[in-house]
Amino acid sequence: MFQKPFFNRIALIGAGLIGSSLSRVIKKKNLSNEIVVCARRDETLNIVKKLDLAHIVTKDLTFAVTDADLVVLCTPVGVYEALAKRMSPALKQGSIVSDVGSVKQSAINMVKPYLADGVHFVPGHPIAGTENSGPESGFDTLFENRWVILTPESGTDQNAISKVEELWRCAGAKTEIMDAKHHDRVLAITSHVPHLIAYTIVGTATDLEDRLKAEVVKFAASGFRDFTRIAASDPVMWRDIFVHNRNAVLEMLGRLTEDISTLQRYVRDSDADKMEELFSRTREIRRSVIEAGQHILPSPSKD
Amino acid sequence: MFQKPFFNRIALIGAGLIGSSLSRVIKKKNLSNEIVVCARRDETLNIVKKLDLAHIVTKDLTFAVTDADLVVLCTPVGVYEALAKRMSPALKQGSIVSDVGSVKQSAINMVKPYLADGVHFVPGHPIAGTENSGPESGFDTLFENRWVILTPESGTDQNAISKVEELWRCAGAKTEIMDAKHHDRVLAITSHVPHLIAYTIVGTATDLEDRLKAEVVKFAASGFRDFTRIAASDPVMWRDIFVHNRNAVLEMLGRLTEDISTLQRYVRDSDADKMEELFSRTREIRRSVIEAGQHILPSPSKD
Repeated sequence: MFQKPFFNRIALIGAGLIGSSLSRVIKKKNLSNEIVVCARRDETLNIVKKLDLAHIVTKDLTFAVTDADLVVLCTPVGVYEALAKRMSPALKQGSIVSDVGSVKQSAINMVKPYLADGVHFVPGHPIAGTENSGPESGFDTLFENRWVILTPESGTDQNAISKVEELWRCAGAKTEIMDAKHHDRVLAITSHVPHLIAYTIVGTATDLEDRLKAEVVKFAASGFRDFTRIAASDPVMWRDIFVHNRNAVLEMLGRLTEDISTLQRYVRDSDADKMEELFSRTREIRRSVIEAGQHILPSPSKD
Repeated sequence: MFQKPFFNRIALIGAGLIGSSLSRVIKKKNLSNEIVVCARRDETLNIVKKLDLAHIVTKDLTFAVTDADLVVLCTPVGVYEALAKRMSPALKQGSIVSDVGSVKQSAINMVKPYLADGVHFVPGHPIAGTENSGPESGFDTLFENRWVILTPESGTDQNAISKVEELWRCAGAKTEIMDAKHHDRVLAITSHVPHLIAYTIVGTATDLEDRLKAEVVKFAASGFRDFTRIAASDPVMWRDIFVHNRNAVLEMLGRLTEDISTLQRYVRDSDADKMEELFSRTREIRRSVIEAGQHILPSPSKD
């Protein structure tokens, strides 16, 4: 549909796990003549240079987006508005702005008002990641067999949407178009609340008396391990997700705490039948996840 | 210290993930001249025979434990009392009874009263497992680099304890002696409450309207995946754990729900600083878990 390279210049704003993985894919699959990586810190830019992830590295946002055909925000969601405000005067007519944030309605609210009419906004969210952060943690197979949800507003230029979809397909991902609000509800229950709970449970353990705390680490293989992995995710990114998807998170968390109370009552009453019934029902969901091929942990060792 | 094979006859009562893994280890490391596997269902015994996991298979508990030097209960905790009552008359003087259950004080309460004076009870709990169940799911490296906690009462024959420790060391595990009540508190926070929460969150998702439910499965790679894995664990085994470790589970769950309320308030107030502080703190725990080597998921592919 489009001829490679799809873009003459792609600017990636931020070079963490997702941004650096995306730049690896763009290079490998020859999706752009030039890659510009913009980051705030010298340390990040030095690593990007060392890993040869960009043709141009810069701390200057205006310079980074000038002449870019595609700008992808790969920063925590919390800085989107500031970025949009600063970069908008430099965006060229016909260019596409996209992002990889885990919250979409808020992304639209923060970015869209600053974009000129001829600039196309195609918000995106790759459902992929690991607990690691930073440019070194990226790898070019991160998006393989994962979903990327795009949430363009109605009336968005179809050509721009298709080009972003094609980019992600070249990364090995499947794409789905979804309403931003609906995306935020789905992600609240599949991702945001699970992370919130993992952070909480690991936090609860760190508050235990010292002896117990040491043993919690020692015997983590019993289930706790998986929660510590989730609770090792980037603190700033997750802080921003909870701030920007507050309502959906509170709704789903409300449902969850009701269900915790129910199960707590089963335990208090030693209601074996009710417990077994629930535990058998949840097992079915795991089967569905495996059938959908979404059970495999991402790993750079697939290279 | 002991000469191999340590035992003339070992009887394994139950042949699920743990029992069948243990029989594989016993065979591989030549730890017993004979292995008897006792199970309730023909289907299980047929698989045990097919996989060549035992010298003798039987449904007759009395027959299984007769002449055994070591009897290991590998069933859900809920049937311990019934098993102890039925097998005790057939246990030979000087024999050792052990188990692999995840709850230890209750195990002692259910088994000890039925054992004659010359029979040694060395309760055990390997901190190892996967979400899979049944004799086919076992593998002989399951216990490698894992901890096995033993909770013998004071006054238990030291030779019996040492022999059980040596058995687990031959399986590649490290052993630790602990008070049963303390074990139950440690496991409540590292294992039982995490499982309870995973069951709940997956349950909450199954109660969503159908469209949302389908999407929860589709986009499970965003965090939910790990919870579905935990919530796929054996329903009967887990039902029994919650019934038999009720008090410690309720105590730890009480602490957790308080902490969930706190985090819920941070989200409601968009208290970014408090969230970031907590999420940074939990990240440290992950580092400790990795340093302790307890972060690696068990996999039969290590063979």
